[in-house]
Amino acid sequence: MQPVRIALGISYLGTRYQGWQSQPSGQTVQDRLEHALGKFTTQPVSLLCAGRTDAGVHGLMQVVHFDTPLQREPFSWIRGTNRFLPSDIAVQWAQPVPDAFHARASALGRRYAYVVLESPMRPSVEAGRVGWVYRPLDHAAMLKAAAMLIGEHDFSAFRASACQALSPVKTLRRLDISRRGAYWRFDFEASAFLHHMIRNIMGSLLQIGQGLQQPEWMHEVLQARDRDAAAPTFSPDGLYFLGPLYDRKWGLPDRTPAYDSLPC
Amino acid sequence: MQPVRIALGISYLGTRYQGWQSQPSGQTVQDRLEHALGKFTTQPVSLLCAGRTDAGVHGLMQVVHFDTPLQREPFSWIRGTNRFLPSDIAVQWAQPVPDAFHARASALGRRYAYVVLESPMRPSVEAGRVGWVYRPLDHAAMLKAAAMLIGEHDFSAFRASACQALSPVKTLRRLDISRRGAYWRFDFEASAFLHHMIRNIMGSLLQIGQGLQQPEWMHEVLQARDRDAAAPTFSPDGLYFLGPLYDRKWGLPDRTPAYDSLPC
Repeated sequence: MQPVRIALGISYLGTRYQGWQSQPSGQTVQDRLEHALGKFTTQPVSLLCAGRTDAGVHGLMQVVHFDTPLQREPFSWIRGTNRFLPSDIAVQWAQPVPDAFHARASALGRRYAYVVLESPMRPSVEAGRVGWVYRPLDHAAMLKAAAMLIGEHDFSAFRASACQALSPVKTLRRLDISRRGAYWRFDFEASAFLHHMIRNIMGSLLQIGQGLQQPEWMHEVLQARDRDAAAPTFSPDGLYFLGPLYDRKWGLPDRTPAYDSLPC
Repeated sequence: MQPVRIALGISYLGTRYQGWQSQPSGQTVQDRLEHALGKFTTQPVSLLCAGRTDAGVHGLMQVVHFDTPLQREPFSWIRGTNRFLPSDIAVQWAQPVPDAFHARASALGRRYAYVVLESPMRPSVEAGRVGWVYRPLDHAAMLKAAAMLIGEHDFSAFRASACQALSPVKTLRRLDISRRGAYWRFDFEASAFLHHMIRNIMGSLLQIGQGLQQPEWMHEVLQARDRDAAAPTFSPDGLYFLGPLYDRKWGLPDRTPAYDSLPC
């Protein structure tokens, strides 16, 4: 039997895991998913994903692919795999794809959202699911600073030292900022992101939002191309990988029900 | 020093706890809060609450009161207590109240909300925070059934055997049903609820919503005044105590930021 390539859309709460990428500890989302697929197919399965997430970062639609000689209906892949997954990870869709499809290489872009609680009191019901600032945020100041980041730039100032990207030049297509009640939402879209780029941008953006820096400071930080010029990395709490963007020709779902689970 | 009565508004995620009410195990929200207040005040503190919640049920604004000889500013009560609370419980407001105020006895009503995911795939990011049905729900059928429950009724059909209420007659003031994307929200308001009343009503309402029973069946169940006539108790996942309603004269906050954390 000719192997078939299968793509899966996965939602997970990152709180209990050491990120996406497989580790000797086995305490990662990839480890749990490969284990579940191995149980279901009774064969070793090795996955490639659209975007690795850090420890504590959540996934609303991670996309993976793998090759398998097994013939199963899409819903059988979903139900069969979910039986062996813990309650905080679930396959949301499954679809056969041509061999030319690659979860990472076919991605035309990636989207992330940060949800941040602005309140004098820390979160509780939503602990781990939202970032937190206790000072009021200035919407206009943050929008002004965010606009300075849009487009193609050398983002070295927001790049973790462990970053393995070939180039620090990336194109930030979108950085939208909205709010509902005490919750702020920051939407990021780029072709690709450097390691910790979003968490590092958020650190600086929230300093500006809290009035600790002027909006123009964002331009200085960007121009410095030096990680030490920017603010500390913001907490992974509240960061969600919304998922990759693919060409429509692959016919893959572009969202999961969990998209509506965010407070804004 | 004359003791002062203090009221606190508390938010918590019920997932890890055996409900509100103190237990020998110490694994309840009340136990954690009394422990934290004891640490902060260096005195034993014993609490009375507005509404006890079951294991797994969340609190967006539980209200408690206690008497203390200590003089502290409201923000000092909040910050000082939160230091000793786990990340999934937090004091959201604190206020001195007259001795005539009583967290339970002064409550004119109580509000709860159920959040339910309608999807062929189980929840993951929002596990424990939403209930789940995999069949589509019929809005009109549920509204028709809900209308039969509004008003003063003998709710024995929805009463747990362990219920200690003096009378099974309660007044259901509101049962609103709305949705956002794949998430449904059910808003309940009554003077008071019987033990498991909301979870039992939800069990029957969701059977009607899924087309397993006709809307008129709700009337039969109510008239039967027999727990065996109704559907099984629905899961506590997705049930939130929004909080008590008090007379405005007490001047207490009527919400917490966590109200906006729900998906709908």
